[in-house]
Amino acid sequence: VDQAGDAGRLGEWQRRAAETRARFHAGSPHEGVASSNPWAELDPELASVVNDLAMGVGYAAPELDLKTRALCTVAALVACGEERYAANWMHNALAVGATPEELVSLVRQLFVYLGTPRTVAGFSALRSVLEDRDG
Amino acid sequence: VDQAGDAGRLGEWQRRAAETRARFHAGSPHEGVASSNPWAELDPELASVVNDLAMGVGYAAPELDLKTRALCTVAALVACGEERYAANWMHNALAVGATPEELVSLVRQLFVYLGTPRTVAGFSALRSVLEDRDG
Amino acid sequence: VDQAGDAGRLGEWQRRAAETRARFHAGSPHEGVASSNPWAELDPELASVVNDLAMGVGYAAPELDLKTRALCTVAALVACGEERYAANWMHNALAVGATPEELVSLVRQLFVYLGTPRTVAGFSALRSVLEDRDG
Amino acid sequence: VDQAGDAGRLGEWQRRAAETRARFHAGSPHEGVASSNPWAELDPELASVVNDLAMGVGYAAPELDLKTRALCTVAALVACGEERYAANWMHNALAVGATPEELVSLVRQLFVYLGTPRTVAGFSALRSVLEDRDG
Amino acid sequence: VDQAGDAGRLGEWQRRAAETRARFHAGSPHEGVASSNPWAELDPELASVVNDLAMGVGYAAPELDLKTRALCTVAALVACGEERYAANWMHNALAVGATPEELVSLVRQLFVYLGTPRTVAGFSALRSVLEDRDG
Amino acid sequence: VDQAGDAGRLGEWQRRAAETRARFHAGSPHEGVASSNPWAELDPELASVVNDLAMGVGYAAPELDLKTRALCTVAALVACGEERYAANWMHNALAVGATPEELVSLVRQLFVYLGTPRTVAGFSALRSVLEDRDG
Repeated sequence: VDQAGDAGRLGEWQRRAAETRARFHAGSPHEGVASSNPWAELDPELASVVNDLAMGVGYAAPELDLKTRALCTVAALVACGEERYAANWMHNALAVGATPEELVSLVRQLFVYLGTPRTVAGFSALRSVLEDRDG
Repeated sequence: VDQAGDAGRLGEWQRRAAETRARFHAGSPHEGVASSNPWAELDPELASVVNDLAMGVGYAAPELDLKTRALCTVAALVACGEERYAANWMHNALAVGATPEELVSLVRQLFVYLGTPRTVAGFSALRSVLEDRDG
Repeated sequence: VDQAGDAGRLGEWQRRAAETRARFHAGSPHEGVASSNPWAELDPELASVVNDLAMGVGYAAPELDLKTRALCTVAALVACGEERYAANWMHNALAVGATPEELVSLVRQLFVYLGTPRTVAGFSALRSVLEDRDG
Repeated sequence: VDQAGDAGRLGEWQRRAAETRARFHAGSPHEGVASSNPWAELDPELASVVNDLAMGVGYAAPELDLKTRALCTVAALVACGEERYAANWMHNALAVGATPEELVSLVRQLFVYLGTPRTVAGFSALRSVLEDRDG
Repeated sequence: VDQAGDAGRLGEWQRRAAETRARFHAGSPHEGVASSNPWAELDPELASVVNDLAMGVGYAAPELDLKTRALCTVAALVACGEERYAANWMHNALAVGATPEELVSLVRQLFVYLGTPRTVAGFSALRSVLEDRDG
Repeated sequence: VDQAGDAGRLGEWQRRAAETRARFHAGSPHEGVASSNPWAELDPELASVVNDLAMGVGYAAPELDLKTRALCTVAALVACGEERYAANWMHNALAVGATPEELVSLVRQLFVYLGTPRTVAGFSALRSVLEDRDG
């Protein structure tokens, strides 16, 4: 085991994750699901590692820009029927440059694959996000 | 009922759908799932309307470019565990400008939401698509 | 593109959809999920087309009577774990002639395929529907 | 515990289950999924009890006729994406009086709830059933 | 039909089910989901039979101890995203000897298969169970 | 960022992961799903990290023994309908001391939560595993 290399790897993920989080937060003061996350409370070590993997390895990679990645995550979470997570990532997408019209157009596009209940849940998430911003 | 308006609406969807299909096919000779679609065989009218809605209303709308839309559809289909549809839309994404590296990076990003079995199915779809292109 | 034919098609769906909605509403004053539908708010055009497709193409077709169709939709929505939609379609089924006893017997039949959590959610939907009627 | 009553209950389910199976088999020589069921091989006692519950309690109850029940089960299994089970119950539905046109019309009706991949899987099940009958 | 044998069978399930329930309740006064179960209200006969099958055939069998079985059921229900049922079975697991640390460690183990939303729901169930015990 | 601590952390996961893998492989020469894993081919870095997290953090933790953990993973994967992964973990469970009878009894226990199609898929996975061992 190359511990020096591993140290660099884990530290690099954490550094990139911090940068990615800063970019999402710069665009919006929204706190998101994480603010009272039961995983972070009961299993802080793995919750933190997984968040670093997501932000530092998944989102920080250069192949796709952050707005495209956020929209793709919204699509995946709407597909899963995860309304609260979808809302959180709609906030993140808006924070890195997506517009409400783009989000409407994305959820609309997904209907033919997902059917009505998941589509309505996606629009319900979006409505709560837009009300949150306007309120 | 404003039949003239409705005629325009349905005709407009069909016209835009034909344009969108041409853009996907220009980039690639791939035929896709549709070539032996049991829905089109057994219920041709609704299958055709739904395809026109998808292509002429969902994908043709100007808010998002076709490559971003194709990547989002890939994300949704990987999330649903629909490996064959995901492969088809990976072909479509490549046809409108996505690269294999972007698709690898997208599926990797989805792991933290979907877990291993769905992620591996996404990479399995991608491997079959890349072998198909290289073969 | 045969625009005259298309106009007839779209207009025909809308006409049949209106008739089908009237049959469901004649049986019951229940307003359903649609009364505060976020899809209809944020994407009114596609929401309206899809509702016309459902009511004018799906339910209006002569092969099956409306009560059988409503029971089948209840079965599909209970299978999906969509409790709120299942409740709405239980209302619709009652409005076109189904009885509470038939709905109990249908949800009971589904247990062996779906298991306990989805079955209990189906009975929970049914209990709320029956309380709504009796209340 | 009223063992005499229990004996009557279990025996009654088995008797009704046998009658229900005979009605499905009278209409068709189709053997179904059960012919090489790994549950029946590895856990014969519970597999048998559950089949008796399904056939003797679920399907044999008088509130709904057998054709309506079979169509509802088809709807639930298409909704679950269980293509092989859906095909089996389409066979059963045809055996108690449903027509191919009714099954086409039922799967078509479900599209707005389930989206394209599950609808296509439903039509794929139906195509295999119809080819099986015609072949 | 061997009615004497059947009577023995059904009575034996009920006897074992009662013993299993007593072991879960001895460890904890928790009432569980069943206290206002809409299935038991609307379809008491099948709800009772299924509970006897679960407790008298599934959990009472000697191959695995009750704590291992309860942990496996927790794993299955977290995997299904059934948060309320998962919480109920976490109560049951604690009642037959599992510790909070074991439950934390189990939900953590499942993350790589299920992804973040289902894992967080599992920890949310666990947090509510632990608060319930401490409160 | 404490890079020395991080190096220790990542190296420690890898060390424990190697030990856990050795325990599974000692019991059985079975190679498992990983032998032609498309994730490992297309995204080797994250695939390797996730496997180290699973084996070195999830399974290596002392709260639960390896056999109990393997049975819980089987339960989760049967619940997800992931037949091939369930089969792989049944192999792993047998490798660390579970018996075929325990696996039969576990899948049987899950029926009331999951319903017939997922239960049959679980028994199908188990049958293939047992044939593989005997063959």
